[in-house]
Amino acid sequence: MRASRFFISTLKEAPSDAEIVSHKLMMRAGMIKRLGAGIYTYMPMGLRVIRKVEAIVREEMNRAGAVELLMPVVQPAELWQETGRWNKMGAELMRVKDRHGRDFAIQPTSEEVVTDVARSELRSYKQLPVNFYHIQTKFRDERRPRFGLMRGREFTMKDAYSFDRDVDGLKKSYQAMYDAYVRIFTRFGLEFRAVAADNGAIGGSGSHEFHVVAATGEDALVYCPTSDYAANMEAAEALPVDSTRGAATQALEKTATPGKSKCEAVAELLGLPLARTVKSIVLAVDNEDPAKKEIWLLLLRGDHELNEVKASKIPGLSTYRFANEAEIVEWFGTPPGYLGPIGTKKPVKVVADRTVANMADFVCGANEADFHYTGANWGRDLPEPLVADIRNVVEGDASPDGKGVLAIQRGIEVGHVFQLGTTYSEAMKATYLDEAGKPQPLVMGCYGIGVTRILGAAIEQNFDDRGIIWPTSIAPFEVVLCPMGYDRSEAVKTEIDKLYAQLSEAGVDVVLDDRGERPGAMFADWELIGVPHRIVVGDRGLKDGNIEYQGRRDTEATQVPLAEALAFIQGKLAA
Amino acid sequence: MRASRFFISTLKEAPSDAEIVSHKLMMRAGMIKRLGAGIYTYMPMGLRVIRKVEAIVREEMNRAGAVELLMPVVQPAELWQETGRWNKMGAELMRVKDRHGRDFAIQPTSEEVVTDVARSELRSYKQLPVNFYHIQTKFRDERRPRFGLMRGREFTMKDAYSFDRDVDGLKKSYQAMYDAYVRIFTRFGLEFRAVAADNGAIGGSGSHEFHVVAATGEDALVYCPTSDYAANMEAAEALPVDSTRGAATQALEKTATPGKSKCEAVAELLGLPLARTVKSIVLAVDNEDPAKKEIWLLLLRGDHELNEVKASKIPGLSTYRFANEAEIVEWFGTPPGYLGPIGTKKPVKVVADRTVANMADFVCGANEADFHYTGANWGRDLPEPLVADIRNVVEGDASPDGKGVLAIQRGIEVGHVFQLGTTYSEAMKATYLDEAGKPQPLVMGCYGIGVTRILGAAIEQNFDDRGIIWPTSIAPFEVVLCPMGYDRSEAVKTEIDKLYAQLSEAGVDVVLDDRGERPGAMFADWELIGVPHRIVVGDRGLKDGNIEYQGRRDTEATQVPLAEALAFIQGKLAA
Repeated sequence: MRASRFFISTLKEAPSDAEIVSHKLMMRAGMIKRLGAGIYTYMPMGLRVIRKVEAIVREEMNRAGAVELLMPVVQPAELWQETGRWNKMGAELMRVKDRHGRDFAIQPTSEEVVTDVARSELRSYKQLPVNFYHIQTKFRDERRPRFGLMRGREFTMKDAYSFDRDVDGLKKSYQAMYDAYVRIFTRFGLEFRAVAADNGAIGGSGSHEFHVVAATGEDALVYCPTSDYAANMEAAEALPVDSTRGAATQALEKTATPGKSKCEAVAELLGLPLARTVKSIVLAVDNEDPAKKEIWLLLLRGDHELNEVKASKIPGLSTYRFANEAEIVEWFGTPPGYLGPIGTKKPVKVVADRTVANMADFVCGANEADFHYTGANWGRDLPEPLVADIRNVVEGDASPDGKGVLAIQRGIEVGHVFQLGTTYSEAMKATYLDEAGKPQPLVMGCYGIGVTRILGAAIEQNFDDRGIIWPTSIAPFEVVLCPMGYDRSEAVKTEIDKLYAQLSEAGVDVVLDDRGERPGAMFADWELIGVPHRIVVGDRGLKDGNIEYQGRRDTEATQVPLAEALAFIQGKLAA
Repeated sequence: MRASRFFISTLKEAPSDAEIVSHKLMMRAGMIKRLGAGIYTYMPMGLRVIRKVEAIVREEMNRAGAVELLMPVVQPAELWQETGRWNKMGAELMRVKDRHGRDFAIQPTSEEVVTDVARSELRSYKQLPVNFYHIQTKFRDERRPRFGLMRGREFTMKDAYSFDRDVDGLKKSYQAMYDAYVRIFTRFGLEFRAVAADNGAIGGSGSHEFHVVAATGEDALVYCPTSDYAANMEAAEALPVDSTRGAATQALEKTATPGKSKCEAVAELLGLPLARTVKSIVLAVDNEDPAKKEIWLLLLRGDHELNEVKASKIPGLSTYRFANEAEIVEWFGTPPGYLGPIGTKKPVKVVADRTVANMADFVCGANEADFHYTGANWGRDLPEPLVADIRNVVEGDASPDGKGVLAIQRGIEVGHVFQLGTTYSEAMKATYLDEAGKPQPLVMGCYGIGVTRILGAAIEQNFDDRGIIWPTSIAPFEVVLCPMGYDRSEAVKTEIDKLYAQLSEAGVDVVLDDRGERPGAMFADWELIGVPHRIVVGDRGLKDGNIEYQGRRDTEATQVPLAEALAFIQGKLAA
């Protein structure tokens, strides 16, 4: 590509509404252009990256035996009503009426449509397994779209759906997709991590997320550096800090802690480690009969955090909400700040985190303003609690696989594989006939990759103060040729044109900057855009028969003999 | 591709709602699947064709210097309001509200968005010309979607938009697109015709349509076989059949024509050629002041048809409608059937088609039931009329370029190039700065290709009673390999696997049918699907060292020595 025939539009400053680095850099590099909240035009430079991402996804999906089709953006409401998602999805589902008043959804995903395809096309066990995928425009009406392509409303996603005869088949299809995703993200050249996610319908490790590792990531990834354990924060199992409970050594004592409503302050006042304190979190579960409303007390060690997803999995808590102050006063006899499990005004259900259940001589609120108990002990001062894993793991926790301690890093979710099971096929009566001619529900998996989000994630992981640093495989161009005086020097023009032809001929995705920009502006543009390999051809170097190579992360340039330029670049690209 | 890893789903019968051959064959070949009225899933076999069409379009657009970007499907109403299309577009424009109640359009085209891109990105004459295009999902809420992909609601279109500094520049950009379209349709391997269309905003031949020639086409294409004149029926100029008016030889006479209200019947009764009769068409033009309503009488030769587009271009008739019976009685004193220009009850404006204006001694209605005039002559019996071209041309008419006579064929519109001028840029204040630093409106052109419609059009042109016959360049596969007993014969499996590897290696898009279907079913499938080249490998042929080749249009097979198979196929593909 000659730059003069392309469209390059860079900005010195990012627009003020760009909050994160990838958004700012994509705007400055002219890769995207905002059309409305969470809606972007992909400008030519950005579209090149998207196409490269799509091509890698497509190749690996096909290699894994998935078959590409294309399902519509606008989908009849009837299918969404069959699965109940028409009502369940809420405001995120963009809904539209046609001229005849019929309802349609603008697809955020395509489970319903693909299950409709499957129920009419997949009739016999002989046709299974099948994995259909498409790469298509999606719309999700986010309440607060932001972060550029990271949380847009219109975006491009690859979504695949596998159909198997049974769970064994699903597990094979799932593994094939998991392996394909590993190949895809490896080919992207990004540092990534697959983590177990909240369990799927099938149970076990029925769901994994693929994250691009980035300090700015919204998600916390938990992993064990000395084993292959990895899970997202929601799903990471927290073992008790102490594997057994110590013996009681102190008497229960009500202690004045005036104005110290936080564990940190109480620990400081009492001269105790924070790890000796227990904090109280009060939940409410409503009932149609208000008299049957339940109040639950969840207990966590003072330095631990509640994991809301884990809490919601405790039988009876699936629909919990946090209790309000009036409820707390009614059940505990005191406002928040000094709550605890001993001597509540009305009975509450107590759940202790595994770590709390193994604590002895602990400190907790006394259900009286400005007082705490010290020396509290299970069994002696209060009944044994219901015990559950309800906290977030922290760095240094023991790994659940027993093979080391946990570490945490930040990630951006860009892929998800999920064992759906028969939820959709049963709701939509999507069956196949088995060998005995008996209809059986299709067993499904679904597998997504956020194509446009990859761009944002790649940048969050790879940038510096000059701009983006694309991995070669998804860079808008692999190599940029910068002439020093394309219109001034016959020698420069001749040699760089020749090199451009050589590289193009060899299949290198190269751009020749023939725009006539001054060197400083030209270099700044390509560093901002993030092309990973740059070659400068100038009279000075040519005098010695050299061109100048600089990788985007290199601190200085390398002189390369002109005659070896092609081989040199090919070596760099193969690296 | 191995067929066993692809998804093939053929039907013996087309669904009953498929009205035209391309729709039927695409459904039977498993290329599309209906999701709702005018909304289809592109199944794997159909998507392959779409991707090939897109690839050719993309290559030629890039070659012509256009730059690809991707504009959103969901577009803010504000932009559409700036150009007034939000109101003008009516029910065809699918409208949707987001969760905050803001209005959006689901794009049927992207003039507004691209002009918005242009007004912020194109600041200087130095950046011009630019041509932006995208290949994107469109939605048009047709009142009556039908004919499969021919008149769907959701479809894929390539739309390009050029921006120039002046009309000269626009004409160059337009010509570049015209030439690119010729290359694109040539590469598709389809018989096509470019015809001048209704004039664009710029005047002159500011608009051309590209049609795939097909007997089933909805549009009539007018062309001169001995020159390069070609226009669609709406735009084709009709010259007067006689270039000058003959002298009057008969007296005006009121003749009884009881019950003969049609020109054909009158001509027969009077023993005159139909070409001596004149028919009357009555139009009304409403006015806010009902007293100022105008009634117009349009006169056509008895065997000619009104061209409604031409009529609407007559000054004063842009908002015409056909008059109703009450109006006819009020102005002509008689119900329809015997109307004419002589002796109307109230004054009407008379427009004679050019042919009628040159007629002498003609027959027309007498404005009295059961009576016609014969021997009517302009100037003598009635005033000279306003003369205009208001009829459709017919086969055999003189070509407007004076280089022969016109022929007519049917076509399916698949492309359109259009000189827009400054309509959008002025409405949206999209200007650039000229050399003097003065803002000037961008001069625009727009250029569409109906990507998914190409599939329907290609089939309407290329099919037989066995199925589709794809041109090689857009066939889902170029070559199909059919083994006779893949699982039975070691020799067949070995040789066809080898040939499959050879062809794949050589870059041929080949499918090996390893499904284990019986020969009859296998051949029927691929003939229905329309793969243009078939190779059969069986034990019988192998005995003589042969394989069997048959082109989709061939009536019989050719024996080809196994050793020459690759070269033979490459020869066929290059043909």
